Amino acid sequence: MRSKADVAIVGAGPAGLLLDHLLHREGLSVVVLEAKTRRYLETSPHRIRAGVMEWGTREILVQVGLGEGLLQNGYEHQGIYLAHAGELRRIDFPSLAEGWRIWVYGQQYLVRDMIARFLEEGGEILFEHEVIGLENLASAPRVRYRTPEGREAELEATFVVGADGSHGRMRAFIPGLSLKERVYPFAWLGILAEAPPAADELIYASHPRGFALFSMRSKTLARNYLQVSPEENLEEWPEERIWEELNLRLEGVAQVQPGPLLEKSLTPHRAFVAEPMQYGRLFLIGDAAHVVPPTGAKGMNLAVADAVALFQAFWAFFKTGDEAKLSRHTETCLEHVWQGEYFSYWMTHLLHTHPDPFREGLRQAEIKQVLASEPLQRFLATNYTGHHTTGRWVGTLA
Amino acid sequence: MRSKADVAIVGAGPAGLLLDHLLHREGLSVVVLEAKTRRYLETSPHRIRAGVMEWGTREILVQVGLGEGLLQNGYEHQGIYLAHAGELRRIDFPSLAEGWRIWVYGQQYLVRDMIARFLEEGGEILFEHEVIGLENLASAPRVRYRTPEGREAELEATFVVGADGSHGRMRAFIPGLSLKERVYPFAWLGILAEAPPAADELIYASHPRGFALFSMRSKTLARNYLQVSPEENLEEWPEERIWEELNLRLEGVAQVQPGPLLEKSLTPHRAFVAEPMQYGRLFLIGDAAHVVPPTGAKGMNLAVADAVALFQAFWAFFKTGDEAKLSRHTETCLEHVWQGEYFSYWMTHLLHTHPDPFREGLRQAEIKQVLASEPLQRFLATNYTGHHTTGRWVGTLA
Repeated sequence: MRSKADVAIVGAGPAGLLLDHLLHREGLSVVVLEAKTRRYLETSPHRIRAGVMEWGTREILVQVGLGEGLLQNGYEHQGIYLAHAGELRRIDFPSLAEGWRIWVYGQQYLVRDMIARFLEEGGEILFEHEVIGLENLASAPRVRYRTPEGREAELEATFVVGADGSHGRMRAFIPGLSLKERVYPFAWLGILAEAPPAADELIYASHPRGFALFSMRSKTLARNYLQVSPEENLEEWPEERIWEELNLRLEGVAQVQPGPLLEKSLTPHRAFVAEPMQYGRLFLIGDAAHVVPPTGAKGMNLAVADAVALFQAFWAFFKTGDEAKLSRHTETCLEHVWQGEYFSYWMTHLLHTHPDPFREGLRQAEIKQVLASEPLQRFLATNYTGHHTTGRWVGTLA
Repeated sequence: MRSKADVAIVGAGPAGLLLDHLLHREGLSVVVLEAKTRRYLETSPHRIRAGVMEWGTREILVQVGLGEGLLQNGYEHQGIYLAHAGELRRIDFPSLAEGWRIWVYGQQYLVRDMIARFLEEGGEILFEHEVIGLENLASAPRVRYRTPEGREAELEATFVVGADGSHGRMRAFIPGLSLKERVYPFAWLGILAEAPPAADELIYASHPRGFALFSMRSKTLARNYLQVSPEENLEEWPEERIWEELNLRLEGVAQVQPGPLLEKSLTPHRAFVAEPMQYGRLFLIGDAAHVVPPTGAKGMNLAVADAVALFQAFWAFFKTGDEAKLSRHTETCLEHVWQGEYFSYWMTHLLHTHPDPFREGLRQAEIKQVLASEPLQRFLATNYTGHHTTGRWVGTLA
């Protein structure tokens, strides 16, 4: 491998790979360092993530030539269903959000597509390469890493990007970084099952027993979730009980057919926003800098928005030497990040049974108003489809 | 005085007096017992409350013949101003809320009008009469009270209404009553001043130093508020400091001229909802059953909605013996009460600087979205003007 690059990206998730692709197609030299194996990224059930793309995410990916897999194997959804008090209400996106809609395509599939595409084009992804240090970030960064064989080596790069996810270590290299955090009193027990999805679009079900979400990976692969306590013990949830509970929470509006489970997991809801998202020549994007609870399906979409923003700042620098956009990276990204955090907070509280009786009373009033009146339906639809997040970036790459 | 009445109402605030008027005009015998003096109710600075009427409240009061004072001396406002980050933005109610708007008229003036009107028409308000006991609530209630002379006496009534405010004791006569509560981390330092108002409509100012509200009682009487800590010491706020701080929080958008203070008070923000709002032949309305923080200006409006709802239930009973509406009093009122609590919570959090950095980040994103996009402006306008609260009751008294 080369020992110099224009940009070293740490982490081969959606944020890092998209940035990688954008820089590579402009002829810049990029090296991606990823601690895990390619097989793990592409197939591990632990990597199963959200499959909802904002309309802006879909537009951006298609526009930059990454749309083949998602257009062939993804699904357009023109709305979602809200279930509450035995009623099933469809929220029609195009009519409420100026024509915008969403696209459903598993994040893991997108990562697989992007890896294949990048390697085909001669790009370099160093799998199983662990970054063990960053030096000289203020002027000429050096990335120290360990190879799969255990050897230590160094890479010089004009810029380093931390795209290494919520548990990543790159964040720690930013002096004075603060985390604004929230631990939600909710968690999701998620399953992936070989079973037909509950409906043709997602069902968000508010129920006295707790929230449930019914989504799909394909016509034969269902991804369903149950609100549980963050302290829940997964051992107490054999398959039978999960299916029974899913159906109890769909009572009166739909039913799901059980099928073999491919995965079962517990996801406590938390959020954080790191600030600043940069130091010297190190920049953070995606989950490395911010995490949202999964309810609003914003995680991957914010990663895409960050990657586009940072690409444009890099491109301005490499093309003209202008560092203005780079100097505002944090400020620029925090605009869509906080919009995403805000909507995720709103949708999470709208749907999850709250342990505090006063908050639960507010929630019941809120969901009734969502079902009864257009302003909150428009708010939901415009935010869900991404007007305030990737919507900012559609058309900026032309 | 008589020792029997169809309805005994405890408390001569807006809820009790409106119900009183509605029952009286249908020829029912009503006695109002009020612990305070008439002079106190009409003139004490401690009784100064919100002056914002929802459009529905105005419609209802005018329709039932209580509109003379408010139409002559009140003000129609077609919007409010939101100030944020040096920008002053008007939220135009008629265009956002299907023609609805608000009316500004001090609650104390309305109480004065209603007392005068009721006494003129031969109604009975027992000022300085303190209720000391309720008995036999399940079938034939007896109200025990103490006269201004210290004598104890008793009144028999078919029904008793607790309209005695948030600190009232009637609530305690409902067995098994639960309070869903919230203590907000905010308080208002409020002043009433002989000074010209800051603007022709209310200004809600979000500022890094804290929220400020600029409202009016008349062209020469301003009512302004500063967000302070609930533990604030009023002694530390001499007049000069208050005016200085008000102007700091209006920086770049407007300025206020100081004038002599008529009143200065500290109001910690809290909320509660009592449930049930009834037991046997005792019914609660207004602040006796629920309190909102003042930001959304919902307190008096919810009291009006409750009074109209309970009047209709009483009227069904006295006219036809039908107890169905009475039996659903709690359920009926909680619909608009929780809508009011929800909007008050929303508007309070939209505008007040939050001590938690994550919540403050969400708030900044929310207010930016309110200023930038129509769905949340419509949400604000429809809720502020009362679509979901007194809006439910407009036209039901015809």
